[in-house]
This record gives sequence, C-alpha cells and structure tokens, in this order.
Amino acid sequence: MTAPLKVAVAGLGTVGGALVRILSERRAGLAERCGRAIEIVAVSARDRAKSRGVDLGGIPWHADARALARTDADVVVELVGGAEGPGADLVRAALEAGKSVVTANKALLAEHGVALARLAEERGLHLRYEAAVAGGIPIIKALREGLVANRILSVQGILNGTSNFILSRMEETGASFAAALAEAQSLGLAEADPTFDVDGTDAAHKLAILASLAFGVVPDPAAVHKDGIAGITELDIRSARDLGYSVKLLARAERREDGVLQRVHPALVPHASPLSHVTGAENAVTVEGDAVGRAVLQGEGAGGGPTASAVLADLADIARGLPAGPVFGLPAGRLAPARALALAEREGAYYLRLKVMDRPKVMAAVADILGEAEVSIDEIRQPHHLPSEPVSIVLTTHRAQEAVMDAAVARLAAHPALTSAPRLVRIEE
Amino acid sequence: MTAPLKVAVAGLGTVGGALVRILSERRAGLAERCGRAIEIVAVSARDRAKSRGVDLGGIPWHADARALARTDADVVVELVGGAEGPGADLVRAALEAGKSVVTANKALLAEHGVALARLAEERGLHLRYEAAVAGGIPIIKALREGLVANRILSVQGILNGTSNFILSRMEETGASFAAALAEAQSLGLAEADPTFDVDGTDAAHKLAILASLAFGVVPDPAAVHKDGIAGITELDIRSARDLGYSVKLLARAERREDGVLQRVHPALVPHASPLSHVTGAENAVTVEGDAVGRAVLQGEGAGGGPTASAVLADLADIARGLPAGPVFGLPAGRLAPARALALAEREGAYYLRLKVMDRPKVMAAVADILGEAEVSIDEIRQPHHLPSEPVSIVLTTHRAQEAVMDAAVARLAAHPALTSAPRLVRIEE
Repeated sequence: MTAPLKVAVAGLGTVGGALVRILSERRAGLAERCGRAIEIVAVSARDRAKSRGVDLGGIPWHADARALARTDADVVVELVGGAEGPGADLVRAALEAGKSVVTANKALLAEHGVALARLAEERGLHLRYEAAVAGGIPIIKALREGLVANRILSVQGILNGTSNFILSRMEETGASFAAALAEAQSLGLAEADPTFDVDGTDAAHKLAILASLAFGVVPDPAAVHKDGIAGITELDIRSARDLGYSVKLLARAERREDGVLQRVHPALVPHASPLSHVTGAENAVTVEGDAVGRAVLQGEGAGGGPTASAVLADLADIARGLPAGPVFGLPAGRLAPARALALAEREGAYYLRLKVMDRPKVMAAVADILGEAEVSIDEIRQPHHLPSEPVSIVLTTHRAQEAVMDAAVARLAAHPALTSAPRLVRIEE
Repeated sequence: MTAPLKVAVAGLGTVGGALVRILSERRAGLAERCGRAIEIVAVSARDRAKSRGVDLGGIPWHADARALARTDADVVVELVGGAEGPGADLVRAALEAGKSVVTANKALLAEHGVALARLAEERGLHLRYEAAVAGGIPIIKALREGLVANRILSVQGILNGTSNFILSRMEETGASFAAALAEAQSLGLAEADPTFDVDGTDAAHKLAILASLAFGVVPDPAAVHKDGIAGITELDIRSARDLGYSVKLLARAERREDGVLQRVHPALVPHASPLSHVTGAENAVTVEGDAVGRAVLQGEGAGGGPTASAVLADLADIARGLPAGPVFGLPAGRLAPARALALAEREGAYYLRLKVMDRPKVMAAVADILGEAEVSIDEIRQPHHLPSEPVSIVLTTHRAQEAVMDAAVARLAAHPALTSAPRLVRIEE
C-alpha cells in the first residue's frame, strides 16, 4: 500500500470537527477503498481548548491557518471561509507551495475561482470543492464527471438551506418571515446577521460555481441577478399554496443564445415539480442535459456530517490518484467571461399581489391594464381579509415577457387605489 | 494532448446509436474536458443496414461481438446485454485480452460481477458500469466516490422504469394492471415479454449491484427477496392514494446486525417521501449514510440518451486517466458473501386488503384476529362497491413484526367469509 496521504486541516468548527472524527472512525475502511490511508498531520483553529469530541492530542497545532502551507502536508483542507482573509490567504499560499487544496469556501471560489484555478492547473495540483455547494450532495462530481457527455441546458436548485427553512416554516405554520427567521436563528440554522442567506448572496455564490461547471463560464457573482426572500409575506405563501405552488428561493442558470442567464430570486414552484417538495434546510439541484434529460439531486445542504462527507469525497479522490485536471471542468484559460444578461427577455408566467382600497374598480383596472399589455390572466383570487384592512388581490398570468410584465406592473403601481407597491414573483417549472 | 482513447462498441441499438451520435457531436468538447479525444475504432451489431442516424462509414464492422476483444481498442463498450451469451463472452474476452470494459449489462454484473471484478482487478483494468443502474443518474459514482466517507445504512429506490410507468398510469387514470401494461408496451416502455420488468428481476439485479457498492457484499440476486407488481389492483392504488400513499415497486437494501437485507417488492410510500413523486418511467435512489443523512438522486432510468450519457461518463473517466481501482468499491477478494436474510424480522407498517361476503361479521373477526396478534390498526376503510360484488376492506396497521403479521394474515385467510386470499403490502418511508 502507498504511503498515507498527509492532510492539514484549517478550521475546526462543526465541519472540521466532523471531518476529524470521521477520518478517525473510518480510517481502515477508507484506506481499503482508496488504496492508502488519509492522515491528518497538522490542524489550525483559533481556540485550542474547545472540546470537539475527538482526540487531537498528537497533531501539531497552528494558531495561524496560513502556517499550514508550510507543513509537510500533501493536501490542505480549508474550512475557514471568506472571499478574503486567512482562509483565502491559506488557499493561495498552499497552491503556491505546491500543495493540493480541498475547500468548502464558496465565496472564495465564486469571487476568485478562475485565478485560483490557473494557479492550481499551472502546477498540476488539485483544487477541489465538493463541499462548497449543496453540502453532502455530490453535485460538483455529477456536473464535472457524471454528466460530462451532456450539453447542459439549465441548472437550477434550492441552494440556501436557511432561506428554504424559513419559507418552509412559513408554509407549514403560517408564520411571518420575521418569526420564521427568529426560529431558524434559535435552531442555529441562521446566523445572527442572516443577510447573506436571505438576500440571495450565498445562493448566488453557489450558482456562479455551478454555472461555471455547467456552461464553461468564469464563476462570477456579479453576473448573477439577485433578489432575496425578505419581501415574501404570509399571504404570498398561502395564496401560492392555494394556487398549487410553493414559494422557494430559486437559483437558476440557463443557456441562452446570447450567453448564460444566472439569477437567484423567490419563485413559485408548482407542486408537480420535485423542487416544491424540498423542505426545511434541504438543498436540491435539477440539471437539464440534452442526453440525460432532467436529473435531480437532493439532500442536506449544510451541517457538519454532510459537509465533511463532501470534503472526504474530495480527499478520497486525491488519495486514489485521480488526476488533478481542470478545476472548473474546462481549463481556466478556456472559460468564457460571464455576463449579466438582461432579465427583460425572460418569458414565463408570473404571480402578482396587489393591495388595494376599492376592490371592484381595481379589478377592472387590473384586467384593463394587463389586457392592454396583452398579458393574459390565468387565475385571479381575492383572499380572505378583515373588513378594516385593505383588500389583497392575487393573480397568476400565462406566459409573458418580463419587460412587458414590468411595464404593466409600473402602470398598476401608479393606480391611485393601490395602497402599496405591487409584488411580482416569477413562476418557474 | 495524449493520443485518443480507442473504443470498440458492441451493440448499436437505442443506446449504442445514441452513444455514437453524442461522441461524434461532442468530440471537441469532450476532448477538451478529458485532455484527450475518445475515438470509436470498431463496432459490432447484427444488422449492418439499419439506419442509426449517424455515419458509421469508416468504422470497421464486426458481425460477432466477441471479435471486438481482438481489435486494437483500449476499451470495449458492451451494450449487448444478458448474463450469458455474446455480450457476457465479450466482456470476459476483452478483460482477458487486457482491455478495459464499460458496460450497461446489469444481469451480467449481478450474476457474475465478482468473478469479472477479480479478472479486471488482477490486470489493473477498468470494469465500469454507471449505465447498468438508473440510466443517466450517476448513482454508481455517488456510492463509490461521492459518499465514500459514509457508513451506508440503507439504499432504496425505484429502479425499474417499466413498473413505475405502469403503477403511475394506474394511479393517474384508474387503469387496470393489464391495461397499463398494454399502454407501456404500445409506447415501447415494456417488452413483448415484460416478465423481468414486472416480476422484480430487473430491479433485483440493479439492487444487488447497489448493495455491493454500499455494503461491501458480493453482488448476488439470489440474496434478494423478490415480489412483482402483477397482483396490485386498481382498488389497491385508489385506496393507497386515499390513505396518503403511492404504490411503488421498491428496491431496498439495508444494513442489519446479521447482514444486509435486500428486497424488491411493491410498497406503499407516503406522499411526504420524495420517492412517491417519482412518476412515469423515472428512476430514483435514496441513500442514507451516517454522515450525509439522506441523499436522493432522481432522473430518467432508461432510454438512449440517458444511458449513453452514463456510458460516456465512464469513458471520460478512463480517458482522463482515473486509476482503475476496485470494481465494487472494495477489492473483490474483500467482499463479504451476500445472504438472503429472513424477512420475518422486518418491523414496519402494513397495508392489508380483504375481499369478503359479509362485512359486519368480518369486520369484527378482522379486529379480533389482529387484536389477538397485538397488531394495532391505524386506519380501516370500506371502499365503494356495487351491491352485487363482494365487499373489500382495506386497512393499514401500526408497526408490527412481519412474522406476526404473516401469522395473523394466515388466520384471516382461513376465515370462511373471505372470497379470496388477503393481499398484504409493506408500507415504507
């Protein structure tokens, strides 16, 4: 049997702790499946005293993550996170020092992926990141290897577990966004500052990585249209459900004639779609390829066990002797620039919610304005309300162009009977 | 760039035709992603004249598949099928001649997998078979590589698209088994002799392969309990739906203290489970691992495009220089024997359907007999019926041991008011 693969681990939080524990528990089994052992030779974390449920006794400890680039490890595992800072510095330093890298750092890959890919590819090193997207679900491997024969038409999914938990709780319990967020925070599923989860930033980072693998473009969050879930109300959730949909924070990249359209936003997903059944903190990704048709991968999107499972899959591939190969499927120099395409050309159905003072007249005005724009109404409903409150009208449209829809909504917004801005949400299959 | 990977293809039906077409269309893209081209250097099929939508003009043709083992190909792709016969002979001959093999032949791998694995491993050759299970879904790769860190607890899925199409049509249209089967045949989704699809043989072959990868046992269909869907009636489908379940042909392997329990049988799957939403000819596999939790992979389980996509994923891995490694995850000599464990110890809920002449007395008798066995009834229903017909009673139980359930059902079967044998179906999460 070959000499063990020597690994240095930076970051011993939930994921790092699970990684060290699994590596110790499954040492023999992994060695048998990989043809060599995987051995931790150095660790780095801020708090040495913290209990992690595993014995780190004999392993050299470094307070500064960057020091791991100077150890004798073959591979550095980076679990510090952040597009800048010690984690990012370590990844660069490790590659420069000729060490392969396994990371869960989606922000770093999304922001600086192509530069890091060049660095790794020039030196024939691995830069692997199965754990960066959708936790333990092997979606990176599926796109880069399992579906390599396909011309990918679209990749879409639920990539942020926190948002999905909040939306699921709103649907299950009728809670408000604020109450569901507070519950997520109390369960440790949302951070004290939940901005990056609920505003779509985290999902956009992950989508940029998937889009790179699927479509051969540079990962670039600036090319992703982004809208979060904070504006979704109990009424939207309830109306969507009555109409046969669930509201999800959807991340979608699709091939168009003029490039790749990338977007993250709330969407109504019909109950017939597998994504509508993805609840709680789960993630799921649907890939549409010309040969394979539609494939769906679903599972836990975060947490110590699932994320460590993905990190270990990458380590096992390296241990087995898998050749390094291009980081994003195509060689870094061959990736096309990613551009933010206009959403105005999107064609699809829409959900529209209006709050109005005077229902009968507004009903007619809505019908008129949409009719003039040649937007055809699929269903229209007036949910229950208290007599003292403004009335809400919700409707769904047949397929229309987004530019047309936006113009019609602007006209509706200007109507004197509306008590607040209309809410437009895309419907996606 | 390295020299092209030379491939010989045996079998130019739907899958082989799609493979040749995709290889020709995506030649440049695949070469870029794999670091070398994939080139077909020989083909074999019975009917040379048949149109396949691709130009095979310059490629040497062999009437006998076995001749491909004597070409200068690096890899032989076997799409002939069958546990015995020319396809099986070719796989053996190719490995013996030092050529790697990619195959979609589940019967061959299930029946003779371990012997072939030894042959491949002794010679350091690839024997890859992503296409043998669940079409284009990369489930083999997921189990062998993506989830390698996990102690797998169970693998279960919908592995036979023909059966799933029949059950879905019965649920959607109220059709009988015979009518839904006829429809499947007219659509080319079932063969003229559908035995292996509807009696569970095909799913058992695939399950034996998944169980080997997941649990380190020898693939062995004889270790799989097997029951088909021919006994499922319209009433069962309707009753299940009313009770909140869909009927699926479920293939399941689970780790138990005394070994691995493998079984294929119809089951009621609750609507909350992702598997219940897998309709038509789709396949899906749920893997439960100690680190990853539950992961689900879903997609088209058959057809030219999806199957060719999986074959090409294997070819691309070989082209990239992936090391061959153990065929079933563990080296063949380390696989444990698979044994058929007793189903009597299964604990779970059940669905029971009884046809009776005299309802009130039988209701009491059923309650008595189940009560004496300490099987507790969850729901009991008497579906609508015509006055001239025997009455049906359907019920679901709380968790019970299968041996206890079997004994109670035997007592029920002996009751004089029953007009036919009771039908017992397992309920699975």
